Amino acid sequence: MEGLARVENALDSAVARAQGRGAPPLLASALRYAVFPGGHRIRPHLCLAVALACGDADPEAANAAAAAIELLHCASLVHDDMPCFDDAALRRGKASVHQQFGEPIALLTGDALIVLAFESLALGARNAARMAELFATMARSVGSPDGIVAGQAWECEAAVPLSDYQRAKTGALFVAATVCGALAAGAEAAPWRTLGEKLGEAYQVADDLRDILCDAAELGKPVGQDAARLRPNAAAQLGLGGAKARLEDLVKAAVDSIPDCPGALELRGLIKAQTAQFFPKQLARVAA
Amino acid sequence: MEGLARVENALDSAVARAQGRGAPPLLASALRYAVFPGGHRIRPHLCLAVALACGDADPEAANAAAAAIELLHCASLVHDDMPCFDDAALRRGKASVHQQFGEPIALLTGDALIVLAFESLALGARNAARMAELFATMARSVGSPDGIVAGQAWECEAAVPLSDYQRAKTGALFVAATVCGALAAGAEAAPWRTLGEKLGEAYQVADDLRDILCDAAELGKPVGQDAARLRPNAAAQLGLGGAKARLEDLVKAAVDSIPDCPGALELRGLIKAQTAQFFPKQLARVAA
Repeated sequence: MEGLARVENALDSAVARAQGRGAPPLLASALRYAVFPGGHRIRPHLCLAVALACGDADPEAANAAAAAIELLHCASLVHDDMPCFDDAALRRGKASVHQQFGEPIALLTGDALIVLAFESLALGARNAARMAELFATMARSVGSPDGIVAGQAWECEAAVPLSDYQRAKTGALFVAATVCGALAAGAEAAPWRTLGEKLGEAYQVADDLRDILCDAAELGKPVGQDAARLRPNAAAQLGLGGAKARLEDLVKAAVDSIPDCPGALELRGLIKAQTAQFFPKQLARVAA
Repeated sequence: MEGLARVENALDSAVARAQGRGAPPLLASALRYAVFPGGHRIRPHLCLAVALACGDADPEAANAAAAAIELLHCASLVHDDMPCFDDAALRRGKASVHQQFGEPIALLTGDALIVLAFESLALGARNAARMAELFATMARSVGSPDGIVAGQAWECEAAVPLSDYQRAKTGALFVAATVCGALAAGAEAAPWRTLGEKLGEAYQVADDLRDILCDAAELGKPVGQDAARLRPNAAAQLGLGGAKARLEDLVKAAVDSIPDCPGALELRGLIKAQTAQFFPKQLARVAA
């Protein structure tokens, strides 16, 4: 699929720039280690798929937006894994960044990836018609009060409003993926919010199911973390059947929300195929 | 002075936005704590002074650029103070952010401030003629290989090329201040680099002198840190007289580098007045 190569190439160029002349060697290594090899790259592929569905008027801007979203996601994983948060030794099937490079470099790697996301966007989307809106949307999806960082900060509070927490920690970057994909292609942002919101919720339910159903080798990271950390888990709250039904409803709502656009039909097919992978194979025997 | 109020107002608006509806309370408090009350706000004042000297064609963009630079500076202080780096208990005369709010919130506060800088720029400079260049310059001054994060990462290496280290850790944000001030006013960037570079070097020498000459109460942070951490210090290398002479040379080079522009005369006077404060009062008795 064309999109896969575009995302990997854009990420490779961005990381290579950060590793450029004068870069401190450990930081340079850690930056590449944190981004490659990737996970499923769900968010950047979603971003690019929306840009393509909208006509892909500015491919360079779309590639930059997709790469920025993945860099921000990788940054959040590096910081979340650190000892003062999840203290996770494993990520994507290999040692986490702080395990491999130490805490100081892990802290700086997350910082550098955040900055690199915005630098990549500035360079790639420099001619985008909706550049300011693209930038502001991207920033809002990571910052406070509505983005990933705010979502993570809810874990430091005694009382956590569940929907605020999940919307910020997981949903915001999915919304950025659909909205920034549209903006990069010169399309309006608003009609694309619901797709991102529903997919973000679906991904959260799927993640909750995997945390209960999968083993660590399959997942490439520790399992049973929600129970261990007393974090809310949809599969624990609704039961496996209830969570499966919820996931199906969210996927349907996502597909139904896709607005009229040149590539709406292809996008619907793609979202159905992608979200089919959200369902852990262990769920096949569970009745919804 | 008009500039002082513009910087504080722009910072206040930015922080208030990050503290907005739905923000986790601890993070919201820590964000304000990390930015107010400020230090000397040298970098944002420099940015605004350059924009004013260039004609201040887009005051909103200039305010946003100045605020972004200070937010990035505050973010670097919060992360540098953390236990895995300087483990500093004191900053600007009060407990450092991780001392006051704990490590997880300090980590997230730094992240949120970086993001807030770019969000503020996207909102305030949305009509700037040179917006993409403004964004890219700002990002480059903080990221890898040339910005603050790279500078900090040199502290994790066994061998440190001193000029790369200081240029990235201290110089880059001064260059961003002058260059982004010009860009925000619609002026060309290149003629303003030298002013930022020379002021950055001068500030580094001044900081080295203060680390040796001042006491902690006067400085609002620990002193003698360079010797304690085996970091290079210009005053230790050149002697007090040598460092004082070097500082004077750098200030002169900075003032002489100011390009022709509507407010060149005022800017020269302002730079002279500001840099006079770089010289610790204990230096008065030292012959250059």
